[in-house]
Amino acid sequence: MKAITLLGSTGSIGTQTLDIVAQYPDQFRLVGLAAGSNVKMLADQVRQFRPEIVAIRAEEKLSELKAAIADLDPQPILLGGEAGIIEVSRYGDAEAVVTGIVGCAGLLPTVAAIEAGKDIALANKETLIAGGPVVNPLIEKHEVKLLPADSEHSAIFQCLQGVPDGGLRRIILTASGGAFRDWPVEKLKEVKVADALKHPNWSMGRKITVDSATLMNKGLEVIEAHYLFHMDYDNIDIVIHPQSIIHSLIEVQDTSVLAQLGWPDMRLPLLYALSWPDRIYTDWETLDLVKAGNLTFREPDRDKYPCMQLAYEAGRIGGSMTAVLNAANEQAVALFLEEKIGFLEIPKTIERACDRHRNDHRENPSLEEIIEADRWARQAVLETAADLAKTPLSVSLK
Amino acid sequence: MKAITLLGSTGSIGTQTLDIVAQYPDQFRLVGLAAGSNVKMLADQVRQFRPEIVAIRAEEKLSELKAAIADLDPQPILLGGEAGIIEVSRYGDAEAVVTGIVGCAGLLPTVAAIEAGKDIALANKETLIAGGPVVNPLIEKHEVKLLPADSEHSAIFQCLQGVPDGGLRRIILTASGGAFRDWPVEKLKEVKVADALKHPNWSMGRKITVDSATLMNKGLEVIEAHYLFHMDYDNIDIVIHPQSIIHSLIEVQDTSVLAQLGWPDMRLPLLYALSWPDRIYTDWETLDLVKAGNLTFREPDRDKYPCMQLAYEAGRIGGSMTAVLNAANEQAVALFLEEKIGFLEIPKTIERACDRHRNDHRENPSLEEIIEADRWARQAVLETAADLAKTPLSVSLK
Repeated sequence: MKAITLLGSTGSIGTQTLDIVAQYPDQFRLVGLAAGSNVKMLADQVRQFRPEIVAIRAEEKLSELKAAIADLDPQPILLGGEAGIIEVSRYGDAEAVVTGIVGCAGLLPTVAAIEAGKDIALANKETLIAGGPVVNPLIEKHEVKLLPADSEHSAIFQCLQGVPDGGLRRIILTASGGAFRDWPVEKLKEVKVADALKHPNWSMGRKITVDSATLMNKGLEVIEAHYLFHMDYDNIDIVIHPQSIIHSLIEVQDTSVLAQLGWPDMRLPLLYALSWPDRIYTDWETLDLVKAGNLTFREPDRDKYPCMQLAYEAGRIGGSMTAVLNAANEQAVALFLEEKIGFLEIPKTIERACDRHRNDHRENPSLEEIIEADRWARQAVLETAADLAKTPLSVSLK
Repeated sequence: MKAITLLGSTGSIGTQTLDIVAQYPDQFRLVGLAAGSNVKMLADQVRQFRPEIVAIRAEEKLSELKAAIADLDPQPILLGGEAGIIEVSRYGDAEAVVTGIVGCAGLLPTVAAIEAGKDIALANKETLIAGGPVVNPLIEKHEVKLLPADSEHSAIFQCLQGVPDGGLRRIILTASGGAFRDWPVEKLKEVKVADALKHPNWSMGRKITVDSATLMNKGLEVIEAHYLFHMDYDNIDIVIHPQSIIHSLIEVQDTSVLAQLGWPDMRLPLLYALSWPDRIYTDWETLDLVKAGNLTFREPDRDKYPCMQLAYEAGRIGGSMTAVLNAANEQAVALFLEEKIGFLEIPKTIERACDRHRNDHRENPSLEEIIEADRWARQAVLETAADLAKTPLSVSLK
């Protein structure tokens, strides 16, 4: 029986984690729950899973939450605000904390959990993309495990299980290619929001679906892989694999390649992050290679996907630059979804923010400097977005 | 530095093993060499690798071998015959013995090596297909490792490295489909020897190329996998994968699928069997998924490949039956290559031998009974081959 705490319980990662906990009551026990503002759903979750401690970020809704579960006995500890979520993340005997909180808001609670000696089932990408320079040394210091809970990094992590230290030589991240994988580059200037939201394989939120269309999601995963597996950027490749059956691959020292495959289903990486190093039996649909059809591979087109190159460049600069890249991207995508900038302005906007950050770049940023870089980049994108339509893109952070 | 002994040094597995030893003189030291009758090549190998002990099966050539290396100082111990090979296999401080001897001739030396506490880098399939019922308990008793050195089982073994005990749930062996994978079943009666020798992906000997065309090679690998990984036949599947890039796959308890990929190159599984659990850096060509092209999968056609079903049936009966299956197949393929029986008579001949063996079948055969079953099956095929052209095939050993 593994004791776990879940941050971001009302989001997509959160509800899927709770599905797993509900399916395996003998394997997992829920210690803490934290969510943003969805009182109704959170109250239902508390009722079903009876955690010891619960926090809601929207402090003003704390009394509403309290009323909604007033009949429960015993009552869980109820907390509100950022401080409450941090308290949940370090509370009690939870061995692992699932970090399903979106954005830099997940960074402080994750750090608190690490400092409390808990393993992290990592579903908050900012933890490493923005926080990598701070989080990685903490992981080492507190000797906790960072267990990737997303499909690609879980694939790499699964393949790495039997590989001796120093055996890894290359990481190959697979990418579906997103909504525009079969569009000619020239047509991208005509892209409408609705076009960018048509993801071929995975059903996901709007922001991540756009990231998939720009391949920024893969660029961000490259940065995550760098921090997670201590691999140079030169040895992390991206290959377009439209079927999303091979979730990623590794190459080891003798040239052997190992891969993890499966139907696209987020529950699998989540379950493995929770059950690691064990494998728990499931009755989920097993992969049928014949039914999966042909598996195909293409080089990603650099002209079509400038965001990919921006991510590599920011990753190589390191320090606080990847926090800026990530935040600028989020803000740019938000502007695109609001139809305030065009699809091709997304990379231009990000490039501009990264360029402007050069003067303030920190090679070894503190957590505060990272959070400030994130805040600054969002503001910078808002300020400069308007001009960008006229500026030509030159993908280069050199 | 790992000390190894090599049985069957002048064959394909043997020379590729020596290529590896020559490429990594800091990693491997050769203790013993054994070969069949190729004095010239064996003498050259002794000169290059300076083993402590050498045996040649063809005893009458021992003096010729002695003369060919008379100038070496110090002289290795020189032995002849089956007894000499057994002595080499158990000699000295070799940690692992590479068993590249073809046929049941490899069985006794392998058993001797196991009893001497040496790990086995397994390239002799009879060790498990015929010898499984005897060898598996010995492996356990002497606590040695059986390290598969063929492409498919190495793939499974590599994928299994990070999987906890009991985590494996299904094995999926990939098969190229052989020379007739794109022939309609009806045309198989017209098959000529030259047709059967056209293997699409691997360059191999004549016998194994025919086994690939009948899919008996894959049937035999199913039996090997059963003994090697302690898996029920119901949980070992075959899938046709014409490109031979995915070398095999495993499914674990949570439905995750792990695969090993690479260009078709026998050196890779050999090196891993020798270096396990380490991974040694090589400058061999790395896999390029884009260059590898589309990866495709098909169900194997039961009508086209009756040998596959014969192998499953013999495997389920177990005991001495798989020794008979294997020996009958070897003899039948030899008759086909001599143009004494047709291609479609291969499965008929094997089925007849297996049927005739039912009365003498041993559930827990001794090593002697296995070797006798092998000898009997070859004789039985020779005796009955002539009648078989007129007998209809009914794939059933029930």
